[in-house]
Amino acid sequence: MPSPHARTAAPALPGHGRLRPLTLDEVHLTDGLWHHLQQVNGEATLDHLRSWTERLGWVQAFTDASAAGTPADRRGREFTDSEIYKYAEAVAWEAARTGSPALLEHLEKLAATVGSAQAEDGYLHTAFGRPGQPERWSDLAFGHELYCAGHLLQAAVAHARSGAGEAWLQIARRVADQVCDRFGPDGVQAVCGHPEIETALVELHRTTGEPRYLQQAALFVERRGRGTLPPHEFGAAYFLDDEPVREAEVLRGHAVRALYLAAGAVDVAVETEDTELLQSVLTQWQNTLARRTYVTGGMGSRHQDEAFSDDWVLPADRAYAETCAGVAGVMLAWRLLLATGDARHADVVERLLYNVVATSPGDDGRSFFYANTLHQRTPTELPDPEGESLAFGGGGRQPWFEVSCCLPNVARLLASLDGYLATADDDGVQLHQYASCDVATELPAGRVGLQVRTRYPDEGSVVVTVTEAPGWDWTLSLRVPSWSRGRARLTVDGVEQAVGHDTAVVHGSLPAGTTVVLELDTAPRWTFPDTRIDAVRGCVTAQRGPDVLCLDATTGTDLDLDRVAVDVAAGLAPADGGGAQVTVQVRPDAGPRDGDGLPYGEAPAHLVGSEQRTVDLVPYRRWGRTGSSTMRVWLPTA
Amino acid sequence: MPSPHARTAAPALPGHGRLRPLTLDEVHLTDGLWHHLQQVNGEATLDHLRSWTERLGWVQAFTDASAAGTPADRRGREFTDSEIYKYAEAVAWEAARTGSPALLEHLEKLAATVGSAQAEDGYLHTAFGRPGQPERWSDLAFGHELYCAGHLLQAAVAHARSGAGEAWLQIARRVADQVCDRFGPDGVQAVCGHPEIETALVELHRTTGEPRYLQQAALFVERRGRGTLPPHEFGAAYFLDDEPVREAEVLRGHAVRALYLAAGAVDVAVETEDTELLQSVLTQWQNTLARRTYVTGGMGSRHQDEAFSDDWVLPADRAYAETCAGVAGVMLAWRLLLATGDARHADVVERLLYNVVATSPGDDGRSFFYANTLHQRTPTELPDPEGESLAFGGGGRQPWFEVSCCLPNVARLLASLDGYLATADDDGVQLHQYASCDVATELPAGRVGLQVRTRYPDEGSVVVTVTEAPGWDWTLSLRVPSWSRGRARLTVDGVEQAVGHDTAVVHGSLPAGTTVVLELDTAPRWTFPDTRIDAVRGCVTAQRGPDVLCLDATTGTDLDLDRVAVDVAAGLAPADGGGAQVTVQVRPDAGPRDGDGLPYGEAPAHLVGSEQRTVDLVPYRRWGRTGSSTMRVWLPTA
Repeated sequence: MPSPHARTAAPALPGHGRLRPLTLDEVHLTDGLWHHLQQVNGEATLDHLRSWTERLGWVQAFTDASAAGTPADRRGREFTDSEIYKYAEAVAWEAARTGSPALLEHLEKLAATVGSAQAEDGYLHTAFGRPGQPERWSDLAFGHELYCAGHLLQAAVAHARSGAGEAWLQIARRVADQVCDRFGPDGVQAVCGHPEIETALVELHRTTGEPRYLQQAALFVERRGRGTLPPHEFGAAYFLDDEPVREAEVLRGHAVRALYLAAGAVDVAVETEDTELLQSVLTQWQNTLARRTYVTGGMGSRHQDEAFSDDWVLPADRAYAETCAGVAGVMLAWRLLLATGDARHADVVERLLYNVVATSPGDDGRSFFYANTLHQRTPTELPDPEGESLAFGGGGRQPWFEVSCCLPNVARLLASLDGYLATADDDGVQLHQYASCDVATELPAGRVGLQVRTRYPDEGSVVVTVTEAPGWDWTLSLRVPSWSRGRARLTVDGVEQAVGHDTAVVHGSLPAGTTVVLELDTAPRWTFPDTRIDAVRGCVTAQRGPDVLCLDATTGTDLDLDRVAVDVAAGLAPADGGGAQVTVQVRPDAGPRDGDGLPYGEAPAHLVGSEQRTVDLVPYRRWGRTGSSTMRVWLPTA
Repeated sequence: MPSPHARTAAPALPGHGRLRPLTLDEVHLTDGLWHHLQQVNGEATLDHLRSWTERLGWVQAFTDASAAGTPADRRGREFTDSEIYKYAEAVAWEAARTGSPALLEHLEKLAATVGSAQAEDGYLHTAFGRPGQPERWSDLAFGHELYCAGHLLQAAVAHARSGAGEAWLQIARRVADQVCDRFGPDGVQAVCGHPEIETALVELHRTTGEPRYLQQAALFVERRGRGTLPPHEFGAAYFLDDEPVREAEVLRGHAVRALYLAAGAVDVAVETEDTELLQSVLTQWQNTLARRTYVTGGMGSRHQDEAFSDDWVLPADRAYAETCAGVAGVMLAWRLLLATGDARHADVVERLLYNVVATSPGDDGRSFFYANTLHQRTPTELPDPEGESLAFGGGGRQPWFEVSCCLPNVARLLASLDGYLATADDDGVQLHQYASCDVATELPAGRVGLQVRTRYPDEGSVVVTVTEAPGWDWTLSLRVPSWSRGRARLTVDGVEQAVGHDTAVVHGSLPAGTTVVLELDTAPRWTFPDTRIDAVRGCVTAQRGPDVLCLDATTGTDLDLDRVAVDVAAGLAPADGGGAQVTVQVRPDAGPRDGDGLPYGEAPAHLVGSEQRTVDLVPYRRWGRTGSSTMRVWLPTA
């Protein structure tokens, strides 16, 4: 069983802010989509990660690095250490969630292996500093040394918050001390090409109380955007070094780097009560959501530099929308929710969870999307379960990638997902995400227990039963998702109550046995894009509850997605499996028309001869699960 | 003056085929757009190329490589030799065109420098094979050794065809012999990651008569697509190694590589009279034009791998459409025109010349587009004339790039452009491109001279006066561009004559003094895209004559191109400078509408409140010439 320390088992634990996160000890998923994904994660994905990283020698690299001599045959890219750390973090949350002694034992052994590669002075990286290797800190732009250190710190924080002891923390503190020594106020004035150390140092500060770690995180945040990184083909924006964090107005460059940095900046802002910095990130986030975000919540339009593009450049085909950016987006939105209490941040968490995070893993938990395109034009290729993909996007879910960051990233989020569902403040409890779960926490007024039961997102009814209540009045708050605003109903013990704009709030003694029911409108609905998004002009998509829907044409269904158009007026009917039924026209081919053989002509395409067909749209997260297929999220209107 | 050998000064000189190219000795531009660009090329661009390559040490690399010891400080990428060779080719054509003794002397000196780096056995590359360098042929996928050899051969062919002597040819033959020795039928069964050697070997065969070079080119063509190159993140299609050339149905992968390979395959097919291979390339080309080509003729949709994408993926924003792909497209289409006589290939040459090749160089001939986007969303940055760009696309024309292939590629095409205007066969002369020029050639029936005078493309009238005629009947053929089919008029000495589908043909004695006038319809016209091109759905563009038009909003004109829409029914009026005047609506902003701050909503955008404005569309090739600007080719319809 988790030790009493597990009371701190939350993926982020700010010292200030509007809301207090509930821990993995206080919230337990019991059923439904997320519980299922979490089970698969614990039963299959963690094993998949362990066996692949062992097979590829990424764990052995630590043992080799601890031995005398040159680890000449170290395999993998320069950041493979970080995959071991993210894996360790996932295992730590899984241990906290399940209390499994086997997992704890595994983590202890892994700590010993990792720790064996640590130098006397605390430095720890398997690819730098030994004979035959590049010197330590010799390639801050691309070497990923501080990035790897950051993930080590996060693993140690997860391990410590799980109440599992100090083994990882001792390694992490020595790493962090060495980083502070080298890059402190009087040290090397530099930053890492890939942000990550910032949020990690703040979390380590939160866990250890060491003020130096927070100061170093603040230094790294303030130092970025001042041209300390070398010029690069992709420009300084690629690593957010084009502009100081507090002066920027929108996220740009490599999406994951941008989001990790923003998360770190929020952490720094919250701990130092720097409202200006917090407001700057809020503005950047708002502008990013408003102009640079896919309808799935996916971020990063470009394959080349895995980056945000200019405003409104959101092509559905070849959308990159990296899975890691989805995870990082959840981290950022969650931090902003805790800091501000604004329910819109929980809307974004929901969008990302359903449409990016849940989309990535295959049903068996052993294959993953790295990129999450919104339009698959050629049939996906079914992966070789033993094969490693050299490419990071396109095609079907793959068992492994040369750069496999997304896999342990999804794993650490799923293992800690209970921690993202609910919060508390002095007055009561706030439910942000809907899934069957049990909640129990201590308020100033006393202990509150809740039983949440729902078939969400397939159905919009969320039933909350109070199982334990303090003697005093308290408040239960339920988020009204943006897609159901004005269309949500609330009853308390069968009596209808008013629903606020973005929350349904119940206040009173609410004794044990009280039943609160929130009814959300999960009828499928059409969604239209801003006219400035050129890539999807003249198209619509459908959503149902938190799910974006798509048209998935499994090979053999004989539906050519290049020729489909929908009549919006004909409407959407709910279909089984959380989808919607729609009538589409299958148009004739329409090109080339002019004499030179190019697909452009002096007259609009002549589309007489369309056939009608009825098809089912399915939740985007379900696409590609029934074999090779083509897919599109955005559908041209007829 | 050019020697008598200059009679062979043609950029491609097939031994078979439907049409015979006219040489730089037989066609001379006298006036107009192309003559002007050619002058700027000769006066500024060649000097620009010389001074930059000298400053960067790319010429010095040959001298250094010839000295004993290790050229440790060799600068630039592994393919800089090829830039010197393309520059030499450009100078050779310029020498052939102008007869300049200074240019010939410069070429002799350059040959001595280049030749000094040649090894005893003929091998020649400055980045491989010496102490401290990678071994020869150790990285066929990315080392560009055969690619560089190919450009050397092409420079030598140009030099020899210009009648300037054997200096380059002697070097090239030794290089080619060494390549044949190593990679011949019994040699290493491999190909170069970047095709180019194929077409070069055939041209060297055409110039020297050596059959071995043709056989080696055929071997390289047949060997590709058989998995001899290593796996790569971008897939085997990146270097066309996914499928044998004669089995492929469409061009794919890196656009320039694909087009150079296709040109080489046509050369092999023509010389070996392999109609199956020729037909295969024709099919690939037809499919590529029909599904994977921008309205500008630009090819290659992706920045990441500079590659063709799937069918119909032709985003206007971030279109790559590399200038080199435009040059390579001209090379391929020209070869197909010579082989088949089909006028549609000349249509494609025209589209590429006006909308890619002429777009790239700045007015001063000292700045260039590497990529040719069809939508510039953020204002271009004006380049630093001394600055080298690390990025290859986006922004304004740049003086230099870390990879500067496009600059000498444009230079060699412009210097030899006279050679792409007209052809002959046993019956007469064919005019394919319209520009003021003088033409004189020998037919079996006798000598023909033509004076072509036109203000094309600003006006559609082309006046051809016969200045010399054989005693016997002969045929003058004029291409009717695809955009003027059914709308072209022809008079011979003032008497109207019938015009064919894609050619206007005049047959008879046509004695000196005969005046043939072709009138083409250069009224601006709307152009609609195939409905399968998602990226420009609901948009139109305009064309006028061979020019694609665009809306160029020079900074300060206060026109937000994200909010512009056109009413197609309102029509297009001709405007000065070859453009068109059009009425646009400037729409209000339209987003975000739903509560979560993303740019998607349950209702279509509400566009009431649009203002009307009259604006000029300008030829795409002129965009970005009046300062920083935003631009779009495709305009949403109102």
